[in-house]
Amino acid sequence: MDSACLVRPLFLPYRRRDGTPVALEDRCVHRGLPLSRGWLEDDEVVCGYHGFRYAAHGACVRVPTQAQIPARAAVQAFPLVEKPPFVWIWTGDPAQADPARVPVYPWLNDAGWVHALGHLRIACNYMALKENVLDLTHFAYAHRSSFEMDDDYAAPPRCTIEDGKVVFRQSFLGKPLPPFYGDHCGLGRKPVDRHDEGVSHSPAEHVFTARIVNRDPAPGEREEYFVRFHHMTTPESPRAHHYWWVMARDHGLGDEARAWMTAVITAGFEEDRAILEAIQQRLDDCEDPSRLREVSVLADTAGLQARRQLEALLARERAGQTGAARAS
Amino acid sequence: MDSACLVRPLFLPYRRRDGTPVALEDRCVHRGLPLSRGWLEDDEVVCGYHGFRYAAHGACVRVPTQAQIPARAAVQAFPLVEKPPFVWIWTGDPAQADPARVPVYPWLNDAGWVHALGHLRIACNYMALKENVLDLTHFAYAHRSSFEMDDDYAAPPRCTIEDGKVVFRQSFLGKPLPPFYGDHCGLGRKPVDRHDEGVSHSPAEHVFTARIVNRDPAPGEREEYFVRFHHMTTPESPRAHHYWWVMARDHGLGDEARAWMTAVITAGFEEDRAILEAIQQRLDDCEDPSRLREVSVLADTAGLQARRQLEALLARERAGQTGAARAS
Amino acid sequence: MDSACLVRPLFLPYRRRDGTPVALEDRCVHRGLPLSRGWLEDDEVVCGYHGFRYAAHGACVRVPTQAQIPARAAVQAFPLVEKPPFVWIWTGDPAQADPARVPVYPWLNDAGWVHALGHLRIACNYMALKENVLDLTHFAYAHRSSFEMDDDYAAPPRCTIEDGKVVFRQSFLGKPLPPFYGDHCGLGRKPVDRHDEGVSHSPAEHVFTARIVNRDPAPGEREEYFVRFHHMTTPESPRAHHYWWVMARDHGLGDEARAWMTAVITAGFEEDRAILEAIQQRLDDCEDPSRLREVSVLADTAGLQARRQLEALLARERAGQTGAARAS
Repeated sequence: MDSACLVRPLFLPYRRRDGTPVALEDRCVHRGLPLSRGWLEDDEVVCGYHGFRYAAHGACVRVPTQAQIPARAAVQAFPLVEKPPFVWIWTGDPAQADPARVPVYPWLNDAGWVHALGHLRIACNYMALKENVLDLTHFAYAHRSSFEMDDDYAAPPRCTIEDGKVVFRQSFLGKPLPPFYGDHCGLGRKPVDRHDEGVSHSPAEHVFTARIVNRDPAPGEREEYFVRFHHMTTPESPRAHHYWWVMARDHGLGDEARAWMTAVITAGFEEDRAILEAIQQRLDDCEDPSRLREVSVLADTAGLQARRQLEALLARERAGQTGAARAS
Repeated sequence: MDSACLVRPLFLPYRRRDGTPVALEDRCVHRGLPLSRGWLEDDEVVCGYHGFRYAAHGACVRVPTQAQIPARAAVQAFPLVEKPPFVWIWTGDPAQADPARVPVYPWLNDAGWVHALGHLRIACNYMALKENVLDLTHFAYAHRSSFEMDDDYAAPPRCTIEDGKVVFRQSFLGKPLPPFYGDHCGLGRKPVDRHDEGVSHSPAEHVFTARIVNRDPAPGEREEYFVRFHHMTTPESPRAHHYWWVMARDHGLGDEARAWMTAVITAGFEEDRAILEAIQQRLDDCEDPSRLREVSVLADTAGLQARRQLEALLARERAGQTGAARAS
Repeated sequence: MDSACLVRPLFLPYRRRDGTPVALEDRCVHRGLPLSRGWLEDDEVVCGYHGFRYAAHGACVRVPTQAQIPARAAVQAFPLVEKPPFVWIWTGDPAQADPARVPVYPWLNDAGWVHALGHLRIACNYMALKENVLDLTHFAYAHRSSFEMDDDYAAPPRCTIEDGKVVFRQSFLGKPLPPFYGDHCGLGRKPVDRHDEGVSHSPAEHVFTARIVNRDPAPGEREEYFVRFHHMTTPESPRAHHYWWVMARDHGLGDEARAWMTAVITAGFEEDRAILEAIQQRLDDCEDPSRLREVSVLADTAGLQARRQLEALLARERAGQTGAARAS
């Protein structure tokens, strides 16, 4: 929970007229005004105080009161890669930015799928959100009146590390789907197998997949249905982060589906936000947080592994090797 | 003013179905959500995040995702003793809790008396409230437009230490009572003797008694009338506390009396709250409070003794001996 | 930006019945209540808690509960000099207060002039306001939609140090006045010479003069017109200050002129306030402000000189020599 903030606290995102996204450090190098208080002119940012002008690559290209521009006059420009619906930002050492590591999610641009997306700012350390999505056993309690998942979590999911990623898996075999799933693939409460899998690719990226296997398809039914969730986190500070979520599925398509997903997920994730912010608040209210105890159980295995994954990345970054990609 | 906070900052009070009061540390030992965001089931508290369940004695009795409960999974349960209208909480070493030390106030459960009670959260160190009630010479200034006490405080009260308690006494002899007293015992402005006595039993407990002696009772008048105040303080943090007050008297009984006491005391004590919070605010605004001067006078003797009383208790607690009882 | 706060954080200003202004430390020496929560009686301040009473020279003159007044019972009284419309306060070593150093501005009490004045509390270090008024090249950006100054600042002003004061000068020769000036002296857009001069007399006092020279006066026109601005700053804390401004001119007189000046300056200086507070906020949001870079340009010369002027004054004060006058 006390892990350092990975990103520079503040940046100004905008798009050039050709659509290319730009992210600049949001602080004029001259007297420190946030550049977001200025304006755009010809794809360049003009500071609203003395008119210093910055190109999209971060260099100051105009100081209105003199011809010569100081060599050091530049703000940081963050490497970006856009893979709709995401724009990925690299906030570590720019030399280490590797666009090849940016993932592609074909289902988010596939006509056979529908997806909805949303954004929440949550006033807590982003690792608490990571742990939240790495342990879904909270559904029966935190979301008992929203998602109405009646899954039996008498045993926690299995957790493995695969290719450096934290993975959890849990199967619900021969059981009716919760309405959240069953109502939309047309299987209703028919007993089926459901295989849940969550993968924490990086501190910024978590993808959850529910694979529904219908061993005995009636006419008009399919053998497999997929639902996916993306939980993307961009830290703002050690006490706040941005949470970009996507829900996608390969069935129950259409605009109405998108509207339903947006409404139900927004409501449910607000429950997480309230919980996570209450935890952070309690931590902040404590004069000596180090004295607070924490007892973990088996269901926390994936979350604890994610903490270790982060610590290893931080250690590597401190050793000058690499940073971590994250979504914005 | 900088004395440490005596209580754990936060606890969750509730009553079992049989009426027994319970106070638990308000923070799930698992991931730190305040238990007050959960719910009660069969006298037990269910955490609203992952459903950890706690018995009234603080032990975790259920982890939904596994059969075995970690040995350390418990929140602190605070010893309580209920003596209506108070519930006493012991926040020190539980082994030192001694119910025999909980005071009994017969007049609070006596049909010959009437009492009103109230609660204020005051955003200041609780010792400032203690000092406030240990020096009533502020009535002529802080409460000049509310209580309208016209007592002559040309000399400060006498302060003594009796049985380890800080006591102040002051007598007003052969003088008419202020309307605050005189209007309700039926003596009006008749000259009488009034003997004020305040006793700080502990950092949590202060009892004030005004004994009105009517040497020359007319028909229908009594020789003695009593008014008592309880000023009970429960710290929340070094910068905030809860103030539980009671006003009681053995005359002018009835519901109307209770309503009058509630209204007039609430209004008057709001004046104290405004003053005490302004003092704390000034302290907090100061970059180096240690440089602020403080000049005490004779009227502060009791308040200064209470500070010493507290320091002695803290020293004893640090030496592993005992804590201090307080009201909630 | 991190310079220490020059003034005691808080003082209580009032006027005696004969009109003399008084400024006392706003904190009762007894239990720390701000004296501004008390009341005045016969030119003396009565604390609203226990009635300690202070004379205008700061000494406590009455403790209601005892005859003897403790020798140390006094609040600081700050030397004041009133030169309307300003009251000057000396917050340094009182022995160093030198009324002779208080400036006189004849134009503020001259029937041939009109002036308007106003006050803003700005939540930023006061030196940021000093730098703001020492570099007017921000007009074209920060005030582009309010003052509509179309001055050409292709070259920054000249900066000199004269008699220990920071001075900048800039001339606009043979050019039409901006409407802000031209509309009120009756010259409209007629090409004239304008000589701007800003003088930072002290950290508290900055006077700007625009001298308009009309080399070829038509009938009814004058050869010279003056506009002056006073930018007076009183720090409240390292993160907030009070800004007292005056705009004065020797033409376009009358109440309507005063109303216009009040409206237009208030609106324009609100733009500065928003900018300065955003800069301070960004600074405060930063976990390690020392790592923030700052690149200065030629136009900052006067502002940087003012920082040096302040540092020299602080060094002198630390060496026990003198403080600095400032306005309130």
